[in-house]
Parts: sequence; C-alpha cells; structure tokens
Amino acid sequence: METDVPTPGSLRDDLGDMPPDELRRFANEVVDWIADYLTHVGDLPVLAEVTPGDIRAALPRSAPSQGESMEDVLADFRSIVLPGVTHWNHPSFHGYFAVTGSGPGILGEMITAALNVNAMVWRSSPAGTELEEVTMDWLRDLLGLPTGFKGVIQDTASTSSLVALAAAREAGLPEARELGLAAGPRARIYASEEAHSSIAKAAVTLGLGREGIRRIPTDDRFRMDVDSLRGAVAEDRAAGIRPLAIVATIGTTSTTSIDPVEAIWEIAREHGIWLHVDAAYAGAAAIVPELRPLFAGWERADSIVLNPHKWLFTPVDCSALLMRRPEAVRAAFSLVPEYLRTAEGDRATHLMDYGIALGRRFRALKLWFVMRYFGREGIVSRIREHVRLARWLADRIDDDPAWERVVPSPFSTVVFRWAPAGVDSADQDDATERILESLNASGRVFVSHTKLEGRYWIRLSIGNLGTTQDRLQRTWDLIREKAEETAGVRLLGG
Amino acid sequence: METDVPTPGSLRDDLGDMPPDELRRFANEVVDWIADYLTHVGDLPVLAEVTPGDIRAALPRSAPSQGESMEDVLADFRSIVLPGVTHWNHPSFHGYFAVTGSGPGILGEMITAALNVNAMVWRSSPAGTELEEVTMDWLRDLLGLPTGFKGVIQDTASTSSLVALAAAREAGLPEARELGLAAGPRARIYASEEAHSSIAKAAVTLGLGREGIRRIPTDDRFRMDVDSLRGAVAEDRAAGIRPLAIVATIGTTSTTSIDPVEAIWEIAREHGIWLHVDAAYAGAAAIVPELRPLFAGWERADSIVLNPHKWLFTPVDCSALLMRRPEAVRAAFSLVPEYLRTAEGDRATHLMDYGIALGRRFRALKLWFVMRYFGREGIVSRIREHVRLARWLADRIDDDPAWERVVPSPFSTVVFRWAPAGVDSADQDDATERILESLNASGRVFVSHTKLEGRYWIRLSIGNLGTTQDRLQRTWDLIREKAEETAGVRLLGG
Repeated sequence: METDVPTPGSLRDDLGDMPPDELRRFANEVVDWIADYLTHVGDLPVLAEVTPGDIRAALPRSAPSQGESMEDVLADFRSIVLPGVTHWNHPSFHGYFAVTGSGPGILGEMITAALNVNAMVWRSSPAGTELEEVTMDWLRDLLGLPTGFKGVIQDTASTSSLVALAAAREAGLPEARELGLAAGPRARIYASEEAHSSIAKAAVTLGLGREGIRRIPTDDRFRMDVDSLRGAVAEDRAAGIRPLAIVATIGTTSTTSIDPVEAIWEIAREHGIWLHVDAAYAGAAAIVPELRPLFAGWERADSIVLNPHKWLFTPVDCSALLMRRPEAVRAAFSLVPEYLRTAEGDRATHLMDYGIALGRRFRALKLWFVMRYFGREGIVSRIREHVRLARWLADRIDDDPAWERVVPSPFSTVVFRWAPAGVDSADQDDATERILESLNASGRVFVSHTKLEGRYWIRLSIGNLGTTQDRLQRTWDLIREKAEETAGVRLLGG
Repeated sequence: METDVPTPGSLRDDLGDMPPDELRRFANEVVDWIADYLTHVGDLPVLAEVTPGDIRAALPRSAPSQGESMEDVLADFRSIVLPGVTHWNHPSFHGYFAVTGSGPGILGEMITAALNVNAMVWRSSPAGTELEEVTMDWLRDLLGLPTGFKGVIQDTASTSSLVALAAAREAGLPEARELGLAAGPRARIYASEEAHSSIAKAAVTLGLGREGIRRIPTDDRFRMDVDSLRGAVAEDRAAGIRPLAIVATIGTTSTTSIDPVEAIWEIAREHGIWLHVDAAYAGAAAIVPELRPLFAGWERADSIVLNPHKWLFTPVDCSALLMRRPEAVRAAFSLVPEYLRTAEGDRATHLMDYGIALGRRFRALKLWFVMRYFGREGIVSRIREHVRLARWLADRIDDDPAWERVVPSPFSTVVFRWAPAGVDSADQDDATERILESLNASGRVFVSHTKLEGRYWIRLSIGNLGTTQDRLQRTWDLIREKAEETAGVRLLGG
C-alpha cells in the first residue's frame, strides 16, 4: 500500500523530521537503486567522465530557501552527482588499492546512520563501545596476533599511524606532554623510502618536522635495509637525537614490498624504540593461513594498523589500530573534562581516550556484520582468490616479453611496465604512461601508477568482490591492445 | 515478489559479495526496522540499562568459522546489541549536546555506504570533492560569512580544531614543518578556562604540550576576559614565547557562553595571531536571523569549526572547518606522493591536502540532502523552535524558587541546580547530583552535568527534532518530582 506522503511544507508544522512513512518510502526507493547499481556497476565508466568544475557548475550557487521534495533531491543525485562518481565498486577498479564494500557492510552503515550514536564515553554508547572491543578482539584472533593486542577503530590509516606515533612520542619523550617539544631534544621516526606519505604527515603534525623522519634506503626488493637502519639509529643517538619509533611496512604502497620486521624489531628492542607496523592494505591477508608467514615478526610490534575498509569488505571508513601498549596511547590522549566524567569511571572503556576525535560513529557494527556474514572461511576464500587472480595476471605478464614486472608481488597488486627489448628506458616510460592514460580514458578499467628508481610503472590492484578471472582476462587483453596502439603511434613517430 | 535467497554457502562459489537480491530483501527489512524504531524511540529507555561488560559477555569470543545468515545477524543485533544502545534519537535525550539526525541524512548515508568512494584526490571522486565544496559554500552563505571562507568536512570538531591549529602553527612557526619544534622557540595557544578539552588535546598532539596552551580566566558570565588575554600575550612575548593562536568559543560546552570575539580579534590582529572560533555546537544557530548578532566578529576569524552533526540534522560524523586562509591549511598538510599525482594537478581541489586523513568518506552527500530537503526556512524554524523550548524551560526554572539557573542561556542549553534558600551549598550539590542520577536511572530522560566554581549543575540541551513542548513539560514535572523525592529523603536524614 502506497503511503500518503505529505509535501515538505506540511511536515509536522515545519518543526519535525521527515515523517517515518515518508522515510520508509524513499528508503525503499534508495534500496532498489542500490541493488540495481551494484548489479550493473560493471557496465558504467570506471573513472567519472567529467572535468574539474563540471559538477559544481551544474549545481545552484546557494541552498534553497524553501525545502524541496525528496523526489527532486534524489533525481538530482542521479542526474548531476552520479555522473561525477568514480566507481570504486566497479570490478575493474584497480587503482590505488582496490577496496570493496559489501552487502552486510552497507546494512551495518544503514543502521549506524539511523541509530546516530556517539561512542565517546561508555555510557553514551555501551553497545558501540563493547562491540568495538569485541570486533577488534575477533579481528586480532583472525590475524593470529597474541591476546595482548587491544584494538580501536579510527577513520583511516593516516589517523591510526598518527595516534600510534603520538603514543611512541609519549613513551619516548614523556616530558613532551606537559612541556612540549621545544624544551626537549630532537627526536626521530625511522621509516623506509617506500613508507607511506602518512608517516611523514604524522611527523609534521606531531611537531617533529620533516627532519623528524629519517628515510632508510631499501634493497633491490624495496625492503628497508636493516644495516642502514642500525647505522642511522646509532648515528642519531651519538648526535643526541632521540629515536622515537620505527615504522615497518608490510605491503608498501608502490610495490607491496615487505620490510624485514623481525630484524627491525631486534633493533627496536635493543634501543627501546616503539615499533609500528603499517599493514593498512595487506594486513587482512594474514587471515589466510598460507599467507601468514609473510607477516613474521609483526606480533612483536607495539602497534599495527590495518584497514578493514581496504581488503575486508567493510565500507569506508574503518581503520583498525591494534595496540600492544594501549596504556601508552591512553597516556598520550586521555584528557577528561568534568562533563565527561561518569559513574563508570575506570570500570569501563571510554573510546575517546584512544585517539584524537572525541565523537565517534558506531563503526564496529558494519565490521561485525561483515565478519559474521562471511565467517572466517568466507573471508579466507575471497582474499585467497584475489591473490590467485593477481598471480594469474603476473604469469600472463611474465609470459609476454614486451613487459616487465616488479617481483615479488606477494599480495594482490601487480606492478608492471611496457619494456620491449630495443626500446630505450625513457621511451618505455613515455609509452607506459600513455598506455595508462589510454586505459583510464577508456572507461573500462582504472589503474594507477608509481615511479621506482625514476621509471614509470603501472600498478594494478585487485580487491573488489566482483572481480573475476574472465574480467581480468579482458582487462589484460585491453592493456595489450592499448600497448599496441601506443607502440604503433610511436613507430609512426606520433 | 519474494526473491529466492541463497544460503550463505552458495554465494557465487564463496567468492563474491552478498547477491543484490539478498541485499535488497534485507535492506528492505532494515528500512522497516529503522522507520519503526524512529517512530517509537521515545518509548524506549533513553540510557541503555546495562552495566559495563554486559554486551561483551553476551557475544561469542571469536568470529564464526563459517558464514552465518543475515537473518541470524540481524536477530542478534536486535536482541543483544540494541539493549546496549543509548538512544541519542530519543526526544528526551538532553545530555552533552543533544544532536539530531534526520530522514534525509539517513538516506544520504545509505547511498554513501553503497557508493563507497574515497575522495582523497579529485579524480578518485570528482562528485565527492565538488559536492563538498558546494555544500560548504552553501553553509557559509547560510551562516552569513564572507565568501573568502572555504570549507572542508572533517569527522569531528576535535579534528577540525587540530587541523586549524596546525595551520596556525604553520603560519606562526613556518620553520617547524621542516625542522620540528625542538629547534624553535616555545609557542602558545590561548583559550579560555571554559574552552573545550579538544583544544588542549590538539596542543598536546601538535607537540606544544599542555604548557603550550594558556588558559585565560573568564568573567562572571564565563566569557574570556580580554584584559587577561592581552596581558598574557604581552607577558609571553616578553618571555620569548611565540603566540600562535587564540581560540574563541561561541557556545562553550559547560554553559554555552560566548567569548567577545570582536575584542579578541583586535588582539589577534595587533599581534598577527591566528584566530580560531570554536562554534562546534552553536554555529548552526547563526542561520537564524535574530540569533546572528550573537556571532558578531566571527567573520574576522582565520578558521571556524561548527558541526552539522550536532544541530544541523546530519548524522555523525560531519564537522565543517571553514577556513579564511585555506592555503595555510594546505601548507601545513600537503604532502603528495607520486602515486597520488594526477593530470588534474592544481586545476582541481584534492581534499587530502586539507587534513590528516588521506581517505575520506563522501560525507557531503548527507549534508546536501539535509540542506535541500529542509531548505533555509525549514532549518531556521527548527533551530528557532529549539531555542524557544530552552527559553520556555528557563522561564519555568526561574519561576520556581527552589532552583537557580546560569544566565544568560542564549542557545538551546539550560544549566540549573537545586538551590532552595536555607540549604547549604554542599547539600545543594549533593541533592542536584542525586536528582540527576535519579532522572537518568528513570529511563525517561538523559541529562548531563558540569561543575562551575566548584558547584554541581545539571545541563539540559535541546537539539532533537522530536522534542516537543509537551514532552519538555513532562520532563520538567519529572525533574521537580525527583527533587521532591531527594529533598524528602534528605529531610528524613536518608
């Protein structure tokens, strides 16, 4: 039965919310749209076919004076906003790190939006607080980490790493909390040349400056060179610089290389330095038994970040910060004003103590839905399949002499370039870049790039639940086709 | 027509997502639940009636090995999680700052979860990027701020203020970005004794330490004392301490007092200090013409934070950081790694440059839905009504000699205590605290507290779209009833 929908002007004398029956009707419409969208997203152009300013130009310059009907708003969403959406859901989205939401994740977000709770202290959302603790414990166990790790959900890996490094600063320079850094010695964070830009951003935010991060060279497989690290720490200590933290990466952004965590930990232990492991992308792969050995040594870390919103079927944002020393994180951040003191006191967890944001969405719900709906075995089979697909593509590339590839490629990201014999490196770079641009302009696939030792490489990351081998075969065919076109133009001097 | 729902085990050979028809079916169930929940939330206990550990104890200790049916997951949500939810949607939720989501906001979140885009660079979500710029421009215009302000959405006010103060540090100590703070002079942020705890947290995070924030005394109306501020800045400068920022608050957390922004700005201008205005709660009230004068001077600020997720009908999280010097924010945070360099370059906005998080949800969509559905007039009438309700309650309190109240109370938060003549202050405090505990234990209302000059006060904040005068009358009746019970017990020596 169709519900009678009042016009916006009649909404409870203009003082209340959208009436529940109107919400029900439009939410059902939105649900239908979502189900259709997810069914057909593979037919849409992956990258939005717009230029900067197009969306803005299509929208009014100011908010409407009178309320509008939800019909009109949803119609404009479809006709104006949607064409400007780059479809991260597209099964041929292979840029950056391919991520994937999921049905259960979307259901969780719907309920989170409706409940609209704010889990800053236990009392303000007991379920939001305790379900976060429970899902983090479940995740830790799935990953095979010791029970000493406690988790907290942050928005993104950038924030998780910032929080971890703030805790490292608290542990290594405890006087800074009161006196600030101007009173103390210079201090440093160590990370490889391949570490993510968020580590440098954290160093700047924390007041350590760009010189507060020391970049350690990598070996021929883009792994942190441990001897260089040892030398750097010794040199800094001799110069009166306080080493605060070492960031080891499992699954770097460019090549998904893996730092030698165990050997790095030995240095961290010897000098009493905080060890933070950035496994934002790759971390979920530790759930797969045969991939677990790639994570050797991470159980020694003081903190680990991995993002369920990357490779664990959870809509953005959901970043898990696993802490072996949660008390250090709490020491860095806890500042309890009177109005947030509650009768529960220390008998309960107050999530505000473990990060920058005081307010917190009920992010655990979607992750709990995902873990229950798929189960451990369902998660394992899906991540395993993404890794298998990446290896399948790697084999195709290795079989074709016109291409070269970064090895190893232990996870689901393949890095390659067009490099036929007899073409010089600069021309290979130009061609590879043009191939990428032409792939992305086709609307059929989206890949991103990196530079390694001055050369241009295509990165193709697999992480979407809709990606199949058939589709990947078509993508590989398209890549070779674009390469031939590009090479043809090149040979014709174009 | 009922769709055939496969069991979890048959999901596309265990490698894909929940099939769209299964998602459609469960999403429709969830929509029905949401509409029913929002209809009846006023009948539920406001505060969750659980004790720490209850929710955790009701949940399994580890994730299931095999996937479970969504039916079972949703059933557990209702039976285990929901009883642990404190209902921020309840029309008698008056704790902290009462917030309100809304139907259009929920619809926006549903689509955001389904699209699952990440607007880190323009290309990765042109619509996410440009709609954020457009909604921030709309918001700025609704607030009556000059067009020089550009906005960016952060998760919470804590993050917005941290980002603003990082920009202030960049502007006032530009060498810190490279060299860190250890190389430079001591530096300070000024905020009143009533400023929010997030400002102190930001000072600690930024490496300025707790001594990096100087608390300025307030006058008898809890407003920053400008003479004290002037003296503090002069004293610090004479001591070689670099003043970085002044934080003025419009709508402090305890009493919603308003700092004299115009006079504070004169000092900021004279010394070239960044002025940040924290209007996280009250800011939305500037949309109401007759309340706009309360914001006099904020147009002079370098940055302003206000939270649409507080009093602008938008589900958490959505905090607007309005920047008059966006280039300073960008200077503080922009660090572009190779893999995020795109052909658009400086011709497009890349939201990652304006904050800590690289990844970003499509938060603008819900705010756009809210602004269009309610329109300016719809927003004005609703905020105006909340302020009218607060004044109505304030009048009831003022008419009853057993109570005293903090004046003025310019927005929608009323602060009061039980203070009959002839009862000494300590006993008044005890009684007021017991009244609060008894109100909150009733399940019929939730209020929070503050301490001012050592005395205990109840804070009652109005911001939910479901709060009506009838309901508030019943709440006031309940408050007096609890006071009589408490006083009765007291007189009996209990």
